Amino acid sequence: MNVEDLPTPAVVVDAARLEGNLATMARARPGDRLRPHVKAHKTTALAKRQLAHGHTHFCAATIREIEGMVRAGLDEDLLLANEVVDASRLGALVRAGARVTVAVDSEETIEAARRGGVEEVLIDVDVGLPRCGCRPEDAGPLAEKARRLGLRVRGVMGYEGHVVGNANRADRERGCAESMRTLLSAHAEVGGDVISAGGTGTYACNLEATEIQAGSYALMDTAYAKLELPFEQAFHLMSTVLSVSERHAVGDVGLKSLAMDHGNPTIPGAQVLFCSDEHVTFVPGASDETASVSPIDWSCPSRLRVGDRIRLVPAHVDPTLACHEKIFVAENDRVVDEWEIDLRGW
Amino acid sequence: MNVEDLPTPAVVVDAARLEGNLATMARARPGDRLRPHVKAHKTTALAKRQLAHGHTHFCAATIREIEGMVRAGLDEDLLLANEVVDASRLGALVRAGARVTVAVDSEETIEAARRGGVEEVLIDVDVGLPRCGCRPEDAGPLAEKARRLGLRVRGVMGYEGHVVGNANRADRERGCAESMRTLLSAHAEVGGDVISAGGTGTYACNLEATEIQAGSYALMDTAYAKLELPFEQAFHLMSTVLSVSERHAVGDVGLKSLAMDHGNPTIPGAQVLFCSDEHVTFVPGASDETASVSPIDWSCPSRLRVGDRIRLVPAHVDPTLACHEKIFVAENDRVVDEWEIDLRGW
Repeated sequence: MNVEDLPTPAVVVDAARLEGNLATMARARPGDRLRPHVKAHKTTALAKRQLAHGHTHFCAATIREIEGMVRAGLDEDLLLANEVVDASRLGALVRAGARVTVAVDSEETIEAARRGGVEEVLIDVDVGLPRCGCRPEDAGPLAEKARRLGLRVRGVMGYEGHVVGNANRADRERGCAESMRTLLSAHAEVGGDVISAGGTGTYACNLEATEIQAGSYALMDTAYAKLELPFEQAFHLMSTVLSVSERHAVGDVGLKSLAMDHGNPTIPGAQVLFCSDEHVTFVPGASDETASVSPIDWSCPSRLRVGDRIRLVPAHVDPTLACHEKIFVAENDRVVDEWEIDLRGW
Repeated sequence: MNVEDLPTPAVVVDAARLEGNLATMARARPGDRLRPHVKAHKTTALAKRQLAHGHTHFCAATIREIEGMVRAGLDEDLLLANEVVDASRLGALVRAGARVTVAVDSEETIEAARRGGVEEVLIDVDVGLPRCGCRPEDAGPLAEKARRLGLRVRGVMGYEGHVVGNANRADRERGCAESMRTLLSAHAEVGGDVISAGGTGTYACNLEATEIQAGSYALMDTAYAKLELPFEQAFHLMSTVLSVSERHAVGDVGLKSLAMDHGNPTIPGAQVLFCSDEHVTFVPGASDETASVSPIDWSCPSRLRVGDRIRLVPAHVDPTLACHEKIFVAENDRVVDEWEIDLRGW
């Protein structure tokens, strides 16, 4: 089947571009120097491609993601890079033989890990992003407390999420270095051999982390395209044109099939006017000065008919993939595989 | 179980407020004068509550929603209020005995209806919202074409979506009246006994439509709260506090569990700073001047501990519900039922 014959909305992944991105990252961050973040794609079949490129340790953001990775046999070293107050489902996985480490940043989350039966933790440190993470000066005492309770403290984690998306490369590198100074100072108090940090935007400049938690590099989006990284746009949403007027056309992709937190999707060769629940209204042939997409070899025709297919690139890959049930894998626009997006939900 | 003991993120519906909203609407628009739009909640169990309030005709935005409504036995008169270029799955439902009408706005979509085996259509007319819908002057000729092909043309549809959200009531009413003048002029050429239009924002002022396509009134959100409608906020997202610092706190609801197209969610009693994939960062005790929520009887405490529960009201109900697998129904914060959100996907 050709991708243009798929029922829409459909997530289409270009296999060659995906493999290219995975290979580029594996050269820069081979083996366990990368801990691929499955929250970006929520798909164990894609995680297995990352495994084939040499990465055996993974991280995740939800308990459901960890459970799914265990079910898929990808449980050599799983990190829940997030706090939980009920670790009982994780503990059950540990008792069944999986290696699961959880991030902790407070006495309560340390207690939760112990109570739930998780045996290994990372101390999550605030390195500048106002989200989770303890104060750097609290990292040592928290590690001590965890060890007193019998937990193994493997090291520290600190996500420089406030700088990974900075399009100014020098600023991004400077911000990353500053965050890592904070993380290293905390690590000196905590100990352990893991310094887990980073993302797609800082995988190259973050030289302090022992492992980088990158996920979006595999498929990319228009927000990451602004950073001039060596990764290509490897997925798009296929949409059917439902209506054409003199002024605009309408496709069947909308707020329920793409995430809008980073703004409108991009349709190369057209200007997106707005999205509603099940629709995107756009002007074929108009150009969008604000659009940024890695080079691609397709574009929206300037004259469209009802039933034509168009392709959109979302602004934010992670929550967009979470809207869908499956990925269609394509080679030169021929559908060669279907992957279930099997790590959705909580 | 109390709602505060639910695993999070969780969609919680207050049964009394839901029933109140359904009753208020059923008084204003009894029976078939309302065609509840299931795209807002994607839940056949909730549609059955709407049926209990006297509405037997429903509308939907996707084929999957129509299929699910048929499976649930709610198929007395179903309208797919959207264009499709492949109506074969709808035709299969018609052959099995369901009554399914589909919107058409072009020769191609009329052909698709006929080819797929759908026997009844509404002519969808552009009444000012730049989306689907034919030019008013094309409505008559399209109806003729449909009838020539053997389809039954039941009337017209025209959604005044460009005015339903206008917070200025006089402007909203004026815009609605203007759109309905357009729709009535098209109806004069098309014929049939259905004039389907409207939504939660115009259910009261739209006196021209024979039936109103409202959905959001059942559960509400902060965008609709701005319109001073007689409907109460009937659902929220329950979230667990994962991390607390001196400056902010973090809950486990984020971009994958709420829609951001209408902006940040509201946490009464707190100020939302930003949302990321799995988190909301907020300042407890701070006030948010821009927030608007129908009166509710709960609020975020100004001092929080890890593990506490907080409640968020999303800005846009429809795409938020589509992120979730189920609804927890509560009476006075006691969980009394679980409803599967069974109409997701395409």
